[in-house]
Amino acid sequence: MAMEDKHNLKDNKELQPLLVFGPPIIFPTFEAQNSHNYRFLKAFSSQDPLHQFLTEQKVDPSSIQAILCNPAQKVSADVIRFLPSLRIIVTTSAGTDHIDLVECSRHSIQVACAAGDHAGDVADMAVGLLLDVLCKISAADRHVRKRGPSMPLNVFFGSKLKGKRVGIVGLGKIGTAVAERLEAFGCSMMYNSRKEKAFISYPFYSNVVELAGDSDVLVLCCPLNEETRHIVNREVMLALGKDGCIVNVGRGGLIDEKELVQCLMEGEIGGAGLDVFENEPIVPTDLFSLDNVVLSPHASSLTSDSLDESYKLSAEALQVFFSSN
Amino acid sequence: MAMEDKHNLKDNKELQPLLVFGPPIIFPTFEAQNSHNYRFLKAFSSQDPLHQFLTEQKVDPSSIQAILCNPAQKVSADVIRFLPSLRIIVTTSAGTDHIDLVECSRHSIQVACAAGDHAGDVADMAVGLLLDVLCKISAADRHVRKRGPSMPLNVFFGSKLKGKRVGIVGLGKIGTAVAERLEAFGCSMMYNSRKEKAFISYPFYSNVVELAGDSDVLVLCCPLNEETRHIVNREVMLALGKDGCIVNVGRGGLIDEKELVQCLMEGEIGGAGLDVFENEPIVPTDLFSLDNVVLSPHASSLTSDSLDESYKLSAEALQVFFSSN
Repeated sequence: MAMEDKHNLKDNKELQPLLVFGPPIIFPTFEAQNSHNYRFLKAFSSQDPLHQFLTEQKVDPSSIQAILCNPAQKVSADVIRFLPSLRIIVTTSAGTDHIDLVECSRHSIQVACAAGDHAGDVADMAVGLLLDVLCKISAADRHVRKRGPSMPLNVFFGSKLKGKRVGIVGLGKIGTAVAERLEAFGCSMMYNSRKEKAFISYPFYSNVVELAGDSDVLVLCCPLNEETRHIVNREVMLALGKDGCIVNVGRGGLIDEKELVQCLMEGEIGGAGLDVFENEPIVPTDLFSLDNVVLSPHASSLTSDSLDESYKLSAEALQVFFSSN
Repeated sequence: MAMEDKHNLKDNKELQPLLVFGPPIIFPTFEAQNSHNYRFLKAFSSQDPLHQFLTEQKVDPSSIQAILCNPAQKVSADVIRFLPSLRIIVTTSAGTDHIDLVECSRHSIQVACAAGDHAGDVADMAVGLLLDVLCKISAADRHVRKRGPSMPLNVFFGSKLKGKRVGIVGLGKIGTAVAERLEAFGCSMMYNSRKEKAFISYPFYSNVVELAGDSDVLVLCCPLNEETRHIVNREVMLALGKDGCIVNVGRGGLIDEKELVQCLMEGEIGGAGLDVFENEPIVPTDLFSLDNVVLSPHASSLTSDSLDESYKLSAEALQVFFSSN
């Protein structure tokens, strides 16, 4: 071993170990900017179980205080219990359904979401998907490109947003940003949430079937948890009706996807704009032949601006943690 | 000839002749609802020149007082001069660049646009195209469908609308509706128009190159005329710059299309959302391979709601004309 390598190795061992799952999209930047702060344990680069990976890396599990992750891999109760000194999990997502929060709470582990102010980005995507489905933009673009030099005339009759009744499921930051945008188009808003919000004048529905029954469009932007899993089931879709449209920028599991595919194929609902899917990265191929569906690969928060922000927040969260511990 | 046919023929000849060009999309409805009011002279169903068509139909050109048309066929000075009793042209479009307005004015011929309140529809499409280009929705949808069951991850990094500087070319009804919508996304607005508008606080630019230089996005929604033809030329596009985006919901001729294709292919501008083309129905096939372009077949005002409105307005305009003449 050359002197330089030895030196690096020594330095590397003295750095704070940071266990990395995923990896987050920002990881290459993170690694380049922080190689003097952390020893990166790239669990994502190994197929082995965590304990074996750490043994191979000659890392004592009890030396690990921090995880950096994205939602691509679960941080399960088993993982958490295997790392007795774990104190912080930084995820570059806004959602935390990939992390066992109960186990985190039990062990006083801090969970930091370093997704930045991504509510606006997701709301942009939600409105973009809705406009795309209603104005049939992607479908028309696809047909123009297929058709060749002469454009298909008078094939695509969209519908206008003005006057549409929009039911927002989950009126948090994202839902509110969606509502602000859609008000400017002349839509009327109503919502479902865990509980009625003070100071919000939109009609509140405690029952999602009733909300769907009164809506032309459902926009899903609540977190996924045991209460919200399959919050949109067949009954909700039938209540929404044949001209109704669903936009999902929350999590795939909010919808019973098998029923969604069925309802779209049978024309029981009018259309859907989907940024998320129940079993990502799997997208139901039955949807590929449908023109009333717009498919987006969980890209709503992937703006270059958000990624910059996400990097800054992750770096800051870890720096603050290590400097105060 | 059976008695019934004779009877119909007689009735038919006593009806007001209505010369129909195009035909407008609403024509089947119009015909079905108004067969007791008009004798429809379907010029669109004949390849012959107008004079020959009318001779074949045994119609005296001087008996024709009204035309119903869409923008698919020009109503030229020759046509207008050939019909000495022409008094009204009803077009189902908002634009009138297919009609020789100078000749109409010379002969005191009324031109009625029966496109309904389509400003909102076109504005919806403008914002939809902009969101689609910035969030890369159609491109991503295309790639998801091509790729098969496993979605492409982290390929599409869009950008957010918040903070974007939008230059609106033509701040009429449509431009204003676009601005109202984009304000809700946190964009800042500026505009070019024939002259500065009173009571509008957005910065006014008399020069489109300067407007483009200060904008991230140009939205074109002015009418096409000799002053606005190629209002967006290469110089404007270079001023807009490599990250800049153009949305055109006005008329194709507002942009020098050859230069647009060139600038898009060379990366001199960042992207475009195009509902209109210079030589419709021809779409430049060079655009088909580009992911930063969204192509829409002049569909912005083709919502089912607008068509209902357009039918009502056309029928009403003609009814009012004939009942008062």
